[in-house]
Order: sequence, then structure tokens, then C-alpha cells
Amino acid sequence: MVQEKSERGSSFAGGHRPRAATGARHEELRRHLLALAECVVAEEGLAALRARNLADAAGCSVGAIYNVFADLDQLVLEINANTLRAISKAMAGIKDGDPQQRLLAMADAYVLYASSHRLLWDALFNHRMPLEDPVPHWFQPVQDEAFSHIEGPLAALRPDLDGPACRLLGRSIFASVHGMVALGLDNRLAPMSLDLLRGQIGLVVGAIITGLNTARPLGAE
Amino acid sequence: MVQEKSERGSSFAGGHRPRAATGARHEELRRHLLALAECVVAEEGLAALRARNLADAAGCSVGAIYNVFADLDQLVLEINANTLRAISKAMAGIKDGDPQQRLLAMADAYVLYASSHRLLWDALFNHRMPLEDPVPHWFQPVQDEAFSHIEGPLAALRPDLDGPACRLLGRSIFASVHGMVALGLDNRLAPMSLDLLRGQIGLVVGAIITGLNTARPLGAE
Repeated sequence: MVQEKSERGSSFAGGHRPRAATGARHEELRRHLLALAECVVAEEGLAALRARNLADAAGCSVGAIYNVFADLDQLVLEINANTLRAISKAMAGIKDGDPQQRLLAMADAYVLYASSHRLLWDALFNHRMPLEDPVPHWFQPVQDEAFSHIEGPLAALRPDLDGPACRLLGRSIFASVHGMVALGLDNRLAPMSLDLLRGQIGLVVGAIITGLNTARPLGAE
Repeated sequence: MVQEKSERGSSFAGGHRPRAATGARHEELRRHLLALAECVVAEEGLAALRARNLADAAGCSVGAIYNVFADLDQLVLEINANTLRAISKAMAGIKDGDPQQRLLAMADAYVLYASSHRLLWDALFNHRMPLEDPVPHWFQPVQDEAFSHIEGPLAALRPDLDGPACRLLGRSIFASVHGMVALGLDNRLAPMSLDLLRGQIGLVVGAIITGLNTARPLGAE
């Protein structure tokens, strides 16, 4: 949950402009604020995102921010959706090799993304919506898309699993890699170089793949 | 990092008491504050821990807190050490079965602990020390002890691994389970009952075990 959403107003949208021009200006401010906010989170972290500072940087009033975003949490959701899309793109790019190799390469792409976009990645997992304000519906497909890339190679590895079982297991494998990345980058496991962490992730994901392959029913392709 | 550590003083320790009596009273207040703070974190979460409220509940001055704890972060470290000791105890209690069964039971004990002590467990992983104030040396052995229980069954499963390799792999497996617990309890994977999550963790940890067992060199016990 992001603090500081008390000051709201409608000081931006001028009352006499034609609707289309206002809409375009609205959209332009929205994009501008999102780009600025994304820079703040990427460089200083989620805690540094403040409406006042953002308004100063954008040259608008604080109220104008709340004309284009319902609150700062909605702005953070847009940033996080972009982060998810970037992670999704990094995983979607992996098309070569057998299912085992693709799964290993996706895990590696994930840790490389997280380590080189550390604060954006932190914001994705550490931001929580206020209790009264659940994650909006538009966010779910973005998340589903990011998870989906694991499902192809997993289904090829285990054609005996039905769709829902494959989707769930794909997410669980994602979460297990995520746990190693989260505790590893934070040095909570042991002081660890990125290469050592990549090696550990390769070991565990390699074991998961071998184990899943061994456990599949006899006669499955 | 915990906010609110500006007010400090020495209003508690009376100047004229003999040293031993002051020491005992100091220790008593320390235990009392720790127990109160642990209740606050367990019931309301880390963000609810405030020196002012804690002093009111303990019937002491805010300054008195800083006579027995250097700052609130040190108090949180003591709470987190107790949480780690409880996790460690839950895992240490698993002594029956072969290495595979013990590893699976430890993963299950971990998710059960986390789900029934959710806010204490959140505090353990979400609390970060201020940059200028690293985690003190006394905390490391508490963390090592919690990780150590995995090493016994893992070494039995893979006697070809040397000590450091086994320790590191044990921590990586811990982190992979942690990731599934963290994203699973938060419903970030999919809306998920505790039993479904336990089943997924069993599947993935089972695959890791099978995979590690399959990958061990021929001739190893």
C-alpha cells in the first residue's frame, strides 16, 4: 500500500476545453506520470514514490495526479504490470532447445531480470493493495501471461497432466525459483554471487525437471 | 526498518539502586517488552509496532525502551530470532522415516508454521535493517541452526556432496519451499487453499528429491 493519498482535487482538467483535447491531454499526463514514477521506483524504490515529489517532477499539481490515477496504488499497479510484461517478454524469447533446456533457460532469465531490475522487481512482490481495494480485474491476465510461458515446456515434459494441473504446477515451479531469487539476492541464504545463485537455481530446477520426468507414468511420451 | 526511534533517554534506570538489582530490573523490562512486542507483531503485524504504544502497554517511558534495546530494529531482530527458533524446533522434531520422507515432512512443517503464524513469519522475511546497521553477529547462528535440519537428510540422500555444497543446496531447497509458501499464502499464484498449497509443495519437493537421487553418481550409497 502506498502512503500519501490525502490531497486530491481536480485542478488539472480545464473546464472549457473540448472533450477530445482534454482526453488527449489527460492521456499524455498519464503516460508522463507513469514514466516518471517508473524511474523513481527503478532508481530509489517503491518507498520513494510520493505524490508531492511526483507532481513537482511532472510540473503539475498533486490533484492532477488524482485526476488521471484513482490513487498511488493504481499507479503502482501500472508500473508492476509493465514489470510483469518485461519478465514475460524475457521468458517468451526462449524458444530453442528441448523442454528441459527451455525451463532451465527461463529460470535463468528470471534471476537475471530480477538482479538487473532489482527495485522494480521488489516493488512487484512487495506492494500490497489496501484491504478494501482488491487487485483490479485487468491485472490478472497480465500475471497469467507471465506465468504461461512455463506451461508449454512443462506440458511437453508431462503430457499426462491436464490443463489445470499443468498450470498450477507451472506456477508452483515459478514460485520455487522466485524463492531462491528472493532470498538469494537478499543474501539471506549466504553471501552469494549472482553466478553462484544461478548455479544453485540450475541445480534445483534441474532436479525438479529430472524428478518430474522420472515420475511420469510409464508409456507417456 | 522500523520507524520511530527518535525519542531516546535514560528515564528508567534509577541512579541509586545497587548494580545487581538494576541489572535484574533491566532484564525484567527487556523480557516484558519483548513479550509485548511479539504479541503486537503476531496479532497486528510489524507495521503496528510503535515505541509509543509499546511504552504505554508496558507502563514505562519511551526512553526506557531505548535503555534496554538500542532501537526498535534490535527489538524486531529478537522477535525474529524467536520465530526462527520456533521454525527450527518444528523441523528438528522430524526424526522418523527415510531421508526423502523427512525432507517432505520438513517442507510441510514449514508451510504449516507459516500459515498459523502468518504475521510473525511475515516480519521475519519483510523486516530489513537500515543500511548503516547490518544484522548483528549473534543472529547468524540462529539462522544457521534453522537451515541445518535439512542438511542431515540431504547428506544421507547425496553422500557425494561435500559439507559446503550440501549446506548451500539445503538452503536453496529451503528457499524454493519458502517461495511457494510466500506466493501461495499471499494468493499470488492462484486462489489456493492451504491443503492445495501443501499438495503443490509436496509435488515439487518430491520432484527435487527424486531428481537429486537420480542425479547422484553411480556407486554412491
